[in-house]
Amino acid sequence: MPPPFFPRTPCLDQQDAEALRREILAYFHTTFDRYEALFGHLTGDAAYYERPISLRHPLIFYFGHTATFFINKLTLAGLVQARIDPRLESMFAIGVDEMSWDDLDEAHYDWPTVAQVQAYRDEVRTTLDGIIRHAPLTLPLDWNNPWWAILMGIEHERIHLETSSVLMRQHALHHVQPLPDWAPCRHGGPTPANPLVQIPAGRVCLGKPLSDPYYGWDNEYGRHEAAVPAFQASRQLVSNGEFLAFVEAGGYSTDRYWDEEGLAWRNFAQATHPTFWVQHPAGWRLRLLAEEIPMAWDWPVETNCLEARAFCRWQAEQSGQAVRLPTEDEWYRLLAFAGVEEVGAAPAAANLHLDHYASSCPVTEFPQGPLYDVCGNVWQWTETPIYPFDGFQVHPWYDDFTTPTYDDRHNLIKGGSWIACGNEARHSSRYAFRRHFFQHAGFRYVVGEAPIRQAVPHYETDKQVSEYAEFHYGDTYFGVPNFPQAMARLAIEALGERPAQKALDLGCATGRASFELARHFDAVTGIDFSARFIQLGVQLAEQGSLRYTLTEEGELVSFKERRLDELGLAEVCHKVQFLQGDACNLKPLFAGYDLILAANLIDRLYSPRKLLTQIHERLNPGGLLVLASPYTWLTEHTPREEWLGGFKQDGENLTTLDALKTLLAPHFRLLQAPLDVPFVIRETRRKFQHSISEVTVWERR
Amino acid sequence: MPPPFFPRTPCLDQQDAEALRREILAYFHTTFDRYEALFGHLTGDAAYYERPISLRHPLIFYFGHTATFFINKLTLAGLVQARIDPRLESMFAIGVDEMSWDDLDEAHYDWPTVAQVQAYRDEVRTTLDGIIRHAPLTLPLDWNNPWWAILMGIEHERIHLETSSVLMRQHALHHVQPLPDWAPCRHGGPTPANPLVQIPAGRVCLGKPLSDPYYGWDNEYGRHEAAVPAFQASRQLVSNGEFLAFVEAGGYSTDRYWDEEGLAWRNFAQATHPTFWVQHPAGWRLRLLAEEIPMAWDWPVETNCLEARAFCRWQAEQSGQAVRLPTEDEWYRLLAFAGVEEVGAAPAAANLHLDHYASSCPVTEFPQGPLYDVCGNVWQWTETPIYPFDGFQVHPWYDDFTTPTYDDRHNLIKGGSWIACGNEARHSSRYAFRRHFFQHAGFRYVVGEAPIRQAVPHYETDKQVSEYAEFHYGDTYFGVPNFPQAMARLAIEALGERPAQKALDLGCATGRASFELARHFDAVTGIDFSARFIQLGVQLAEQGSLRYTLTEEGELVSFKERRLDELGLAEVCHKVQFLQGDACNLKPLFAGYDLILAANLIDRLYSPRKLLTQIHERLNPGGLLVLASPYTWLTEHTPREEWLGGFKQDGENLTTLDALKTLLAPHFRLLQAPLDVPFVIRETRRKFQHSISEVTVWERR
Repeated sequence: MPPPFFPRTPCLDQQDAEALRREILAYFHTTFDRYEALFGHLTGDAAYYERPISLRHPLIFYFGHTATFFINKLTLAGLVQARIDPRLESMFAIGVDEMSWDDLDEAHYDWPTVAQVQAYRDEVRTTLDGIIRHAPLTLPLDWNNPWWAILMGIEHERIHLETSSVLMRQHALHHVQPLPDWAPCRHGGPTPANPLVQIPAGRVCLGKPLSDPYYGWDNEYGRHEAAVPAFQASRQLVSNGEFLAFVEAGGYSTDRYWDEEGLAWRNFAQATHPTFWVQHPAGWRLRLLAEEIPMAWDWPVETNCLEARAFCRWQAEQSGQAVRLPTEDEWYRLLAFAGVEEVGAAPAAANLHLDHYASSCPVTEFPQGPLYDVCGNVWQWTETPIYPFDGFQVHPWYDDFTTPTYDDRHNLIKGGSWIACGNEARHSSRYAFRRHFFQHAGFRYVVGEAPIRQAVPHYETDKQVSEYAEFHYGDTYFGVPNFPQAMARLAIEALGERPAQKALDLGCATGRASFELARHFDAVTGIDFSARFIQLGVQLAEQGSLRYTLTEEGELVSFKERRLDELGLAEVCHKVQFLQGDACNLKPLFAGYDLILAANLIDRLYSPRKLLTQIHERLNPGGLLVLASPYTWLTEHTPREEWLGGFKQDGENLTTLDALKTLLAPHFRLLQAPLDVPFVIRETRRKFQHSISEVTVWERR
Repeated sequence: MPPPFFPRTPCLDQQDAEALRREILAYFHTTFDRYEALFGHLTGDAAYYERPISLRHPLIFYFGHTATFFINKLTLAGLVQARIDPRLESMFAIGVDEMSWDDLDEAHYDWPTVAQVQAYRDEVRTTLDGIIRHAPLTLPLDWNNPWWAILMGIEHERIHLETSSVLMRQHALHHVQPLPDWAPCRHGGPTPANPLVQIPAGRVCLGKPLSDPYYGWDNEYGRHEAAVPAFQASRQLVSNGEFLAFVEAGGYSTDRYWDEEGLAWRNFAQATHPTFWVQHPAGWRLRLLAEEIPMAWDWPVETNCLEARAFCRWQAEQSGQAVRLPTEDEWYRLLAFAGVEEVGAAPAAANLHLDHYASSCPVTEFPQGPLYDVCGNVWQWTETPIYPFDGFQVHPWYDDFTTPTYDDRHNLIKGGSWIACGNEARHSSRYAFRRHFFQHAGFRYVVGEAPIRQAVPHYETDKQVSEYAEFHYGDTYFGVPNFPQAMARLAIEALGERPAQKALDLGCATGRASFELARHFDAVTGIDFSARFIQLGVQLAEQGSLRYTLTEEGELVSFKERRLDELGLAEVCHKVQFLQGDACNLKPLFAGYDLILAANLIDRLYSPRKLLTQIHERLNPGGLLVLASPYTWLTEHTPREEWLGGFKQDGENLTTLDALKTLLAPHFRLLQAPLDVPFVIRETRRKFQHSISEVTVWERR
């Protein structure tokens, strides 16, 4: 009887809590076992302490890290009350998986012995065993359940099972030894042909609901829908043999095949061939986990994203076709087209989950529909930087797993490798690495319309912009209604039956009032001096959502997403245009408005007088000017001599309201008594600016 | 039939509004007339444009100023809608009455012609005439009534009637000419003896209620009561002849008779004798308003306060007695002792209100009880810097009349002079000038216990200190209860039946919580790093009140007074001691407390860890530590490496609350779940900081 397959990530949608408990217990121990077994490849202490590559910790760190991770996350979940070894746990807490190649780690570590770490792992195992056996388990086991932290720890160790195997593959050969339980594929052949296969157009609908019955990382949840035009895809992954033509054509030394980022990496790394290729006098050999073998030409080539892109450019030049990497959406079209199912209890119909080999295998070994290796063998680079699906929420116990990767520098890899296990092996998983990083990853190319490179919505972290995002689109505090919305409503109400074709939102900041005015006006122009502010409005209009961090306390942040459709503004956003501009020096074309709103603007201008003495030229007769200001005059914004009021003039108090009346009298009539409209700007969870604007409504004579 | 006396300030407590209207109309015109008549002394244009003294504007300014003042104040009151001549009114708005002698006016003015100003005055007169005749007058005419501005304007002009007469008296003789309607006294005699008169001890009760039926400046209202010990007073004002002995004894050149301020002035002014004395080869002469006369030895000498003090020191040295100027309180005792009545319709029993002369007269001409000239002849310097009575409120239409003089540099003059008219002639009036200034002012000396020089409560204007004064003692905003009071109550409630002998309010700022804790504790120590903050607490404990400005908008401020007795804290304030200290480095003597309150402190310390790891040594076993903080960590207060929380540690979020639990665990037990307590700090009328402190209560094991 063959040994049972390495357990799959459990289905959590079970009625029997005790059965699920037993399954999780086995899932934990087999994962912990297999991880320790992997480290059996190391030949001695030096193998633990010498770094395989300069960008990462030595393997001793990773040996301890996955254990510490359990303790940290179970502490957050309330399942663990006390640390096991604070010194080790501080040392093993933070990896350096995401270092740039120009950001070498200089820290000094006083690592413990292997025996000490093994003893620590044993203690963690005992602790976890006790918890999984005895802690109360209340169903459903969803991401709010304390047990989610246990699954998080196990899936985390499965990720490191793979990444540690990559490090061992990068280690000097004398540091590793083959093991009988980790046998690689032993067969291969000549380079196969790799014809293009036509993939029909279709829709993809990605993202999981929170009710999905399998563990997932936060980046898998939410929703993304897209229509994918037809394209062609290479039937197989690109093989070592296919890639050899690129190497032999001087692809590595031909700058035009490389983009800027690729050139920088190639020059730094002095790369002349794929990283696991070894040049011998007798010819190319291939480095596996614990041995070198003669080059397997029909196995998939393994590259980083930059090398894969360079190959595509070379291939495009050769073929005259629009060769490139697929997008994430296109990969899901391949999956649908090939009809690939999730890994089940039986051996996978793919070189996946350690079901077959401890290495790659020929690219023609696992057919999936008309294609090969849509899943499995090696990961496949995509052209898509990882981005959050709509509705993305950060998991609070691991809030720096995903969000730091939404930076346009981490591209998604899809499909899994021979050692991708657990969550990694599922279709919904979304792993992304820096484009210069190596994994057991290669690629398949496609021919199609050049993809429109989508802007990656990142988390706005600039303190002021984030505060304004929350001010305009976020929650309300102290019961104070949303200010820009209140201002727009007030302006629309004051307008009554007057014409409502064009409105100008002057000093629109992040643009909420502009959108709100578009409910009533045919066209709204939002102008602000700050390009950073209006960029948020532009992003909202274009992408329908924005994301930002909120400072909670000190450096701690939370993550927030807001959508135009949830605010009921998606239908009107096409009427809004945002432009950068100077309210004190507006271009002549900004004229003919029925309404000009200037909310919290005048006390931030370098010359409010300039604006107010000319603003009538922009308004249609009978049109309205709506001003709102807390009159917070500060010399850092407005030189003292440009303040409108708030000082003594000729011995008497001159308020800003007095000054407005005088300044606007020639062309305006004050329509109603001034109103107080409060607003709140959140700085931290516990600190707010709470102000009261005075609102005046002026009718152009 | 003699001409009617120059009208007295009207009694406003009348039933017949039309009769009062007529009386005010006459009061206005006669004042306007008499002011213009005074300027008849000037011999031509040069007299208007050359400055009598370098510290003041030329007389053309004062000619226009009193008219502009009407327009400005009636505008504020809503009685005037439009300016008459904005250019002139801007020029005539602000006087320079309060310039220091080391602060010369450098401004350039393009003054209008005398005829232009006269035409402007005529217009103002017509405007005022129309308003007084026709504007609705609703009784009572109190200081909230728009008509109060009319009386303010008239009384203001009466002040300038006097101060302009002083300027004319300081003008070069060829610039002025005698007028028949302004005849000085023409008699005099030898220097009279000036015996001391015994004044019995008694109480004074000063300050008017707002219901007082006569116009008053804001500094006259409120309440001040004091017991005045017995003292002796010179029977008459000091005469020119009596002062001559001081001059001839080398008083002006003997430094020891002068205090520091006096010396500085004497050296600047190169003074060798009283300012209106003129040294001729034939002997001393006396400068009057528009002529010089042979020295009148039995008329009162006229000096500034510094010269009067020097005379007293000389006299003290001569007599071996504690000779000094009287206090304001002592002057009121003289008034009561002499039984002097207010000026009535008949000629005053004093050289006052222009009833007798356009000059001084012999100091023995107007007996008042056993004394002479308690009122009238010349003003009398007192030793008392003007200060606000309890309950003082600024009149909003003239908020810079009084408050700038609460600076310890303006001393009160009492009693009025021959030209003190209207409000000036009333006993309740309180005029104060810089001590180096000249008016028609001299002095009477007293012999008594050296007065305890009272600290003059000034208006705290430092922005941060004022904000904290309001935060601790002022109004509440947005319905948020007073924070230090809430904290003290919460601490006392948590304390329950525990001992309550000693409490420490660490980071007490302006001290409100210290006072509140004193309701429950036998002794409270308030410690703050800022001496400026604790000074407010000290002042409150010593004087029972504090005063500060509140920023309304830009540079505009309002004025506020708070009293311990109104807060119900007067009875407990003796239990409170305020000390400057460093919470991170407390002296050993601060120990043995039953309670330590540290509200909004830890995130403002340079090393909160230092405090919290040692704080248990200060507390009695079973005593409580109450912490409150919004955890607003800022590197400007606390270096990043000293933050307690608000960052990631070993990869996980570390909140400040987590850190507090760890830091305090060895010596404390957390008594209850953390509470949120909000607080609001007012910055301007329309801008507030609104924060939420987290409060934790810890019991010392």
